[in-house]
Amino acid sequence: MSNEINKNSVKNYLSNLQVKIIEAIQLVDGKNFLIDSWQRKEDGAGTTAILEDGNIFERAGIGFSHVTGTKLPKTATNTHPEVENRKWEAMGISLVFHPHNPFIPTVHMNVRFFIASKNKETDIWWFGGGIDLTPYYGFKEDVIHFHQTIKNSLDTFDDNLYPKFKKNCDEYFLLKHRNEPRGVGGIFFDDFNENNFEYCFQLIQSVGNNLTKAYLPIIQKRKETKFTKKEKDFQLYRRSRYVEFNLLQDRGTLFGIQSNGRVESILMSMPPLVKWSYDWKPEKGSAEEKLYTDFLIPKNWV
Amino acid sequence: MSNEINKNSVKNYLSNLQVKIIEAIQLVDGKNFLIDSWQRKEDGAGTTAILEDGNIFERAGIGFSHVTGTKLPKTATNTHPEVENRKWEAMGISLVFHPHNPFIPTVHMNVRFFIASKNKETDIWWFGGGIDLTPYYGFKEDVIHFHQTIKNSLDTFDDNLYPKFKKNCDEYFLLKHRNEPRGVGGIFFDDFNENNFEYCFQLIQSVGNNLTKAYLPIIQKRKETKFTKKEKDFQLYRRSRYVEFNLLQDRGTLFGIQSNGRVESILMSMPPLVKWSYDWKPEKGSAEEKLYTDFLIPKNWV
Repeated sequence: MSNEINKNSVKNYLSNLQVKIIEAIQLVDGKNFLIDSWQRKEDGAGTTAILEDGNIFERAGIGFSHVTGTKLPKTATNTHPEVENRKWEAMGISLVFHPHNPFIPTVHMNVRFFIASKNKETDIWWFGGGIDLTPYYGFKEDVIHFHQTIKNSLDTFDDNLYPKFKKNCDEYFLLKHRNEPRGVGGIFFDDFNENNFEYCFQLIQSVGNNLTKAYLPIIQKRKETKFTKKEKDFQLYRRSRYVEFNLLQDRGTLFGIQSNGRVESILMSMPPLVKWSYDWKPEKGSAEEKLYTDFLIPKNWV
Repeated sequence: MSNEINKNSVKNYLSNLQVKIIEAIQLVDGKNFLIDSWQRKEDGAGTTAILEDGNIFERAGIGFSHVTGTKLPKTATNTHPEVENRKWEAMGISLVFHPHNPFIPTVHMNVRFFIASKNKETDIWWFGGGIDLTPYYGFKEDVIHFHQTIKNSLDTFDDNLYPKFKKNCDEYFLLKHRNEPRGVGGIFFDDFNENNFEYCFQLIQSVGNNLTKAYLPIIQKRKETKFTKKEKDFQLYRRSRYVEFNLLQDRGTLFGIQSNGRVESILMSMPPLVKWSYDWKPEKGSAEEKLYTDFLIPKNWV
């Protein structure tokens, strides 16, 4: 397989993936996305697709962007400190789907490709990405299906990857100030440059192509479940954790903000409606408590 | 006036101020605060007072805390980099009141006292604080009253302070990623150590004692104003800016999070219910647009 970087192939793949996911979600929801293409002077362009007040989704956003900069901010990489201040180019798609129904979990996926370059030196490149699930009410079978699908998408490459990426994900999506996982995890990886470009690119495609397989069956299973105001309130309350994570910790969000990115596209990950309540605790033995005790814990799901 | 630090006087003043403000707000709202005293091993204690689902206030929080640490984090000071990693002690009260009625603005006040110490060296101490207003629908007379009251509280000390602190406030409460002021400002100061301890302490008291004078008349004036769902929605939407500011930029919040503070007390500043909408823009000529064009701009109100 080739180790030559093929930027255009990545770009085409990501653009097409965005379109495919948009179509799949529109079919499920019945409402169309608003498609907003944008351009920022010389430093970037993208397409933000957003669906608000849909039938299934309260807010679903999926953005493609291709941006460049002259000085890579710190948040961009953990393992390549030498790239700080290099010229950089990044392309990726990022999605967060927030359903109305609290029995359907929120899903997040990000797939990105980075190139950091410097005169006369070889380009440094890496892929990053991840898929993770944030339920409000936990169903073991849904979480297993989600993890199993993602695991399968990686096992064809190397069966050491899923355990490693799963662990990364658990570590990454931990709200440090609360010592609480954001959800039930999935996979997360960054600075991925193994074997050669073609290998990495195919792996990324396998991840991206499995999002709908991992998530849509859960929607189908839960979308008719009736919910009460109490259950809706719990979802709104739990969404505040999503906001806290994204604004306090998420590297993608902070990278976007620090690199002076397009705010509305970066913050389309924010939930549509969010509630904070002081020192709220679930009732003993309740379904809400079960989320904390049985799901928001480090656990091997498959 | 004396330059000897009197820590206990500051502590007593702040505790008493918390009680006085609680009483004043309870009188206005008709519902009592929940009073939650907490202790964290050896490193701190405090009292968080919170009122949720009141008659006037959707969420009103006022916290007193007295915390210590062994290594002062970076966010604690701008002008004294030499105190980084010193032992520290901080006490303060912090309040944020989020009303139901979108015609009543949100108010924030913080008053704090810091001591950074090191074996055998003289203690470094400073006061910090501020009061600022965040309207959803702007009323010029309310903003003028607010600023005038705060100006008066400082002019008795030094009439150069208000213009300086007002400018600080405008600079501090600017959402950088949106280049948008959080509200109509007020005053903000940090690293305040002028003349002597007693002078600074009296100034702080003047600021603290004027919160109710600056804010309560606005509540009385606006609390009976009827509002529509559209106006409520606009308030919920604007509250998202409050969240963005506090979690992305606010030094008090980030200091609390970084110093492993008590999360529920730090985040009681979060609004109770918050809405994000993609790339929302006010209608031309609307009252919502007026907030942006006539109020969220740098302006000398008095």
